[in-house]
Amino acid sequence: MKTVKQITLAARPKGMPDMSIFRFDDVALPEVKTGELQLKGRYYSVDPYMRGRMNDVKSYSPPFKLEHALEGGAVAEVVESKDPAFAPGDLVLGPYLPWATEMVVPAATVKKIDTNLAPASYFLGVLGMTGLTAYIGLLDIGKPKAGETLVVSGAAGAVGLVVGQLGKHLGLRVVGIAGSEDKIKMLKEEYGFDEALNYKTGDLSAQIAKACPDGVDIYFDNVGGDVTDAVVPHLNFFARIPLCGQIAIYNNEEPSVGPRIQPTLLTRSVLMQGFIIRNYPTRYAEGIQYLAPLVKAGKIKFTETFVEGFEKIPEAFLALFTGQNTGKMIVKV
Amino acid sequence: MKTVKQITLAARPKGMPDMSIFRFDDVALPEVKTGELQLKGRYYSVDPYMRGRMNDVKSYSPPFKLEHALEGGAVAEVVESKDPAFAPGDLVLGPYLPWATEMVVPAATVKKIDTNLAPASYFLGVLGMTGLTAYIGLLDIGKPKAGETLVVSGAAGAVGLVVGQLGKHLGLRVVGIAGSEDKIKMLKEEYGFDEALNYKTGDLSAQIAKACPDGVDIYFDNVGGDVTDAVVPHLNFFARIPLCGQIAIYNNEEPSVGPRIQPTLLTRSVLMQGFIIRNYPTRYAEGIQYLAPLVKAGKIKFTETFVEGFEKIPEAFLALFTGQNTGKMIVKV
Repeated sequence: MKTVKQITLAARPKGMPDMSIFRFDDVALPEVKTGELQLKGRYYSVDPYMRGRMNDVKSYSPPFKLEHALEGGAVAEVVESKDPAFAPGDLVLGPYLPWATEMVVPAATVKKIDTNLAPASYFLGVLGMTGLTAYIGLLDIGKPKAGETLVVSGAAGAVGLVVGQLGKHLGLRVVGIAGSEDKIKMLKEEYGFDEALNYKTGDLSAQIAKACPDGVDIYFDNVGGDVTDAVVPHLNFFARIPLCGQIAIYNNEEPSVGPRIQPTLLTRSVLMQGFIIRNYPTRYAEGIQYLAPLVKAGKIKFTETFVEGFEKIPEAFLALFTGQNTGKMIVKV
Repeated sequence: MKTVKQITLAARPKGMPDMSIFRFDDVALPEVKTGELQLKGRYYSVDPYMRGRMNDVKSYSPPFKLEHALEGGAVAEVVESKDPAFAPGDLVLGPYLPWATEMVVPAATVKKIDTNLAPASYFLGVLGMTGLTAYIGLLDIGKPKAGETLVVSGAAGAVGLVVGQLGKHLGLRVVGIAGSEDKIKMLKEEYGFDEALNYKTGDLSAQIAKACPDGVDIYFDNVGGDVTDAVVPHLNFFARIPLCGQIAIYNNEEPSVGPRIQPTLLTRSVLMQGFIIRNYPTRYAEGIQYLAPLVKAGKIKFTETFVEGFEKIPEAFLALFTGQNTGKMIVKV
């Protein structure tokens, strides 16, 4: 029996996770049975939402199990196939593959990807959950109308970059919020954002007022916390808030406290909708059809931060919480 | 020229309003011109939302003007008509009539009411803004499905009573939250609520857990503040929150601070929607058609608290904030 490396959840984090919650184990690879595939991981996605699954609480995804392999979106290569639809060498995408160097999984849990359409790693990003999250959140919940103002927090993150460019494509005024001067510059110069604001320098609320002279019609929220507190007072009547992420407070041990938003949501007839892309499976094909030509035409550019080596997955994950990535964070093996 | 009494906004309140913000003035009644009506007030509505209009801030209704008459929904009798559609003695409903004993207004700003359908005061309540607010909030935003659990805060208030009974009519499990044992008893015994909880006694969150063994699918929020904090942890996946009122914090001078709700809304894909009935004018006729037969059949009972005398309007308004009313508060002249 072949032995492979896996990354085990050794402990549930309290607050900000660190390396101590991960353990590298040698595990035996089971035999491949009918309908199964043996895969070798090629690209592993690390995503902020995984922090939520590390807690043992009710959420949209079931909690990771202690003493089991962590899991996430990954692109893998078929090594051995006992399913007629797959052959060795095929590249496949799985939304919940274990963090292991190799793995045996039911063929039904993965899909072949077409690398003629885009590079393999894009299926973890702009043509995967990231792009689809931007697409559903902005179009279905944001309901944009040309000429409106869109503010996106976490604008230099994987989802934020797509949201902003989709917003420009749809004729919106797009204002991004991010946490460094390099990111701000990149958003404006490379990604066509109308304005980009650094929440770490100066009064964010005043910056928003200046950047959004007509107020905020859509606030696509990836971060929550103080950034949201600064945006809420600038919401227009009938504004929409696709609630996509809350990275600012995922690591808080105590429930986060802040100004209540309900008075503003009430008096301005604002809609706020939490959503998670896995609840929209019937829309994936449509979303990819919408996004792929925009990506191919260069209207939606996509940035990836690559980290090399299976053993770097934990570090790459932890780096998400200090904003070290630009665009999609991918571990390449 | 005839002189009438009016209630003037003499000062903007800070925090909880008191009598000092009101002033009774004698004002001259203008002549009735073509297309206008002279009216005598019969029933005046006092509503929590008016507190918001006393502040000089952006809200769904424009602020009341200092040194002008306050205004609100009222039923009045036509004294003199210079519009062919109205005759002396007609009873009319105006959503924004001045707080004056008599008034001259454009005929287009009022509508005749049909007292064969219901008593005149009902057009300020269950067949007026109150009932329509319950109808739109519960049906359009709450999107109830039979068998789901509805929690309504401010359950013994005018809107809450209608929401709860509509919920029962639609096959929901209905749990009301109110602030006295008398109200709790009334909700269960007279209005058919499945459970009613007193937020002033004991641990509200534990009471909700017990009363809602399957969690909360719709939270119709009239009050906000601590009551909402107790409800949010019990929300189910895909729960809906029609955000109708925030009476708990209307009078706060400082922005109210509390646990952030976004993490729960995000991880459980919850929708929250602020709304105000004046933005749904095209739905009024439909709503009244829906409600009137239910009221006539006794399926929706409606309670009114009457205060007698024009000069009691300020007191009646202030009493809303100490929960002295049950159902709709009306000043009868």
